[in-house]
Amino acid sequence: MSQQNGTVNNQAKDQNRTREPIVSPYMPKYPDPMSNISNFKIIESTLREGEQFANAFFDTEKKIEIAKSLDEIGVDYLELTSPAASEQSRNDCKAISSLGLKAKILTHVRCHMDDAKLAIDTGVDGLDVVIGTSSYLREFSHGKDMEYITNKAIEVISYIKSQGLEVRFSTEDSFRSDLVDLLSIYKAVDKIGVNRVGIADTVGCANPRQVYELVRTLRSVVSCDIECHFHNDTGCAIANAYAALEAGATHIDTSVLGIGERNGITPLGGLLARMYAADKEFVKNKYNLTKIRDVENIVADAVEVTVPFNNYITGYCAFTHKAGIHAKAILNNPSTYEILKPEDFGMSRYVSIGHRLTGWNAVKNRIEQLQLTDLKDEDAKVVTQKIKELADVRPLSLDDVDTLLRHYHNAKNEGVHTHFLDNIDTPDQITQMGATA
Amino acid sequence: MSQQNGTVNNQAKDQNRTREPIVSPYMPKYPDPMSNISNFKIIESTLREGEQFANAFFDTEKKIEIAKSLDEIGVDYLELTSPAASEQSRNDCKAISSLGLKAKILTHVRCHMDDAKLAIDTGVDGLDVVIGTSSYLREFSHGKDMEYITNKAIEVISYIKSQGLEVRFSTEDSFRSDLVDLLSIYKAVDKIGVNRVGIADTVGCANPRQVYELVRTLRSVVSCDIECHFHNDTGCAIANAYAALEAGATHIDTSVLGIGERNGITPLGGLLARMYAADKEFVKNKYNLTKIRDVENIVADAVEVTVPFNNYITGYCAFTHKAGIHAKAILNNPSTYEILKPEDFGMSRYVSIGHRLTGWNAVKNRIEQLQLTDLKDEDAKVVTQKIKELADVRPLSLDDVDTLLRHYHNAKNEGVHTHFLDNIDTPDQITQMGATA
Repeated sequence: MSQQNGTVNNQAKDQNRTREPIVSPYMPKYPDPMSNISNFKIIESTLREGEQFANAFFDTEKKIEIAKSLDEIGVDYLELTSPAASEQSRNDCKAISSLGLKAKILTHVRCHMDDAKLAIDTGVDGLDVVIGTSSYLREFSHGKDMEYITNKAIEVISYIKSQGLEVRFSTEDSFRSDLVDLLSIYKAVDKIGVNRVGIADTVGCANPRQVYELVRTLRSVVSCDIECHFHNDTGCAIANAYAALEAGATHIDTSVLGIGERNGITPLGGLLARMYAADKEFVKNKYNLTKIRDVENIVADAVEVTVPFNNYITGYCAFTHKAGIHAKAILNNPSTYEILKPEDFGMSRYVSIGHRLTGWNAVKNRIEQLQLTDLKDEDAKVVTQKIKELADVRPLSLDDVDTLLRHYHNAKNEGVHTHFLDNIDTPDQITQMGATA
Repeated sequence: MSQQNGTVNNQAKDQNRTREPIVSPYMPKYPDPMSNISNFKIIESTLREGEQFANAFFDTEKKIEIAKSLDEIGVDYLELTSPAASEQSRNDCKAISSLGLKAKILTHVRCHMDDAKLAIDTGVDGLDVVIGTSSYLREFSHGKDMEYITNKAIEVISYIKSQGLEVRFSTEDSFRSDLVDLLSIYKAVDKIGVNRVGIADTVGCANPRQVYELVRTLRSVVSCDIECHFHNDTGCAIANAYAALEAGATHIDTSVLGIGERNGITPLGGLLARMYAADKEFVKNKYNLTKIRDVENIVADAVEVTVPFNNYITGYCAFTHKAGIHAKAILNNPSTYEILKPEDFGMSRYVSIGHRLTGWNAVKNRIEQLQLTDLKDEDAKVVTQKIKELADVRPLSLDDVDTLLRHYHNAKNEGVHTHFLDNIDTPDQITQMGATA
């Protein structure tokens, strides 16, 4: 052990300097003028894509609660289910549009005049128009319906603009569509002044390098904004959003906890974690990160799911450090093992101690917290060995660890601490000591 | 509605051709000889990284159960907690090494001779050696300890090789380390015949384009294999693994459900979903995908968590389709909205019907399943309108939908179906009908 302890001391000394970590050499040294990593907008679609989640059912009151909660975070847009879906959906568009939120209100409609008219009458700020289904785009590739589709898109977009509303035009299943057809229709709608064009990975098949290539290409073709929508079937919804922004996209679609069709889309909390890692100041200044947990709890409750244990930021383990070597470094300098500061998200750090992967620096830190000032490094080391031994049977709770430390402390004052430790063979003995204390 | 219905018919006709989707134009047309998308290995670390998950505690029996279950899937390696962590950890290395699994057994140790000797004695096939903590690498950048570290690495690696074991050498926090220092040490250990070098995104800060750049650079420096380990703090652990393989990495670290320090690493199921989307045949032939659910259930149970609702493949909503427009297309041709075939993973598709986003094609499909052959398209359309109306109050269960369809069918035979529908005002009426049937 002595060799290892020497090493540990060197590390501790180094970490005590609390130097900031080196900026990654793999980050570009000069800003890319096309990148919107530090200048992006969020289109929050819990009230549209999220309604397509298996057991989502939001009544008007719940929709308003979610809308207000998202508005407190500071998302730029709220996207609502099409008023064509049902009577209540239409009334909800009206109700949320009249709340006077800071976020702009959008609704998501098919590329039909009927849908567009219905939507405009609800008082929303803008329409997210989508070309029906991917089968359309397959038709494109045969050239048959290209002219028909383009004309229809122009008719609907022109009408929406004539009514003074913002309008986005999106294809579906963009990553399995013909590139030339895609670019042609985006170019055509850009020319007539659409506010945004949208790329959608409807099936969740895209990967970040594909996304980067397509968005970068599109960026050179249109002058309007570029919105991206990523499904998470193959685990790339956050990374794809990031790659899109790097390539020049301006708007990202999210939902709370990522809920949506199948296993959903880019989660709001996960995207904010990613962007915080890229530009902490921009994200902290623009969005109220401490409110993420509130809206996640509201939505989880409404759709009757548990916030996943491994959720970004608010998953119960997101800021829990366990292995001894991690815990030690975290205690000396949190940025060693944390890219996200828990306090910036209204969360707390937790260092787990009572298990067999523990280390003596974590135990020493607990000794200091308990103000057992008579105990020295050597004491922390022998107690740590005992914890590891016992935790091979079962993990100790923090109460167990505290009991062990307090009793060891008392035993040391009486000079019987070695004897005390030798007589402990099972975790249950400690739990019992604690219970009878 | 008539205009919309016409559109729907056109789409249905198109999908009935069940044409395969166009291969993405954003996928490289010619294979990249450096890419290992179709030739990668999995180092499954549930029994090492996974043990660092907040409430993980695996006894020997549970470790063996997990090891066997992972072996059935066909993962290439199992990585175990260091025998230096505790007495039981050491015994578990011995126990699992002697099971005679197809997977090679590794243990993860610090770059110390003591740890290496202890590990070799357990009978494992190989050692994953890691340089202590990121503070080491910060020292590198000052040049002070570079020689010391390199010498130590060479000593430990040479010793492990002299004992006939496989050895990997990894740095920690590789993405915040000095590039020249990183490449220098990797080059030095490659020269003495290390089997693999490892890159670790210990804090989860890396993004896919950084990963691609670093791995591609490293690929040109070393001739040995390249292993990558990605934490998921900012949601890129799967995408980063994919980018690493594209760039020439050979081995990816995973854990079941992604469990590990904080919110964990690349999840096994999620990685397999991603790789399946990239090369279905390679993944299906090499791994037993239908066993993913079993091992996820075993691990979730052992660490007392619920499999997240939005988990890859096995999350309960992963194959649930809801919006009318999706459901229709799925029923005609599943590949329209599915990049993963549920049956390849031993899972089932579910199309949700009884909600306000439903569409008449989904209802028509249910009519066919119930063999209510007297009902025509027009019937499906009017019942769909009624479902939307009722579902604005609350969603209908599948039982409710079936009750509604069966009663409507009977009413039609008596010529009173219009009257029947007009008299239904609430979902509860239908539920009651079903209960008294």
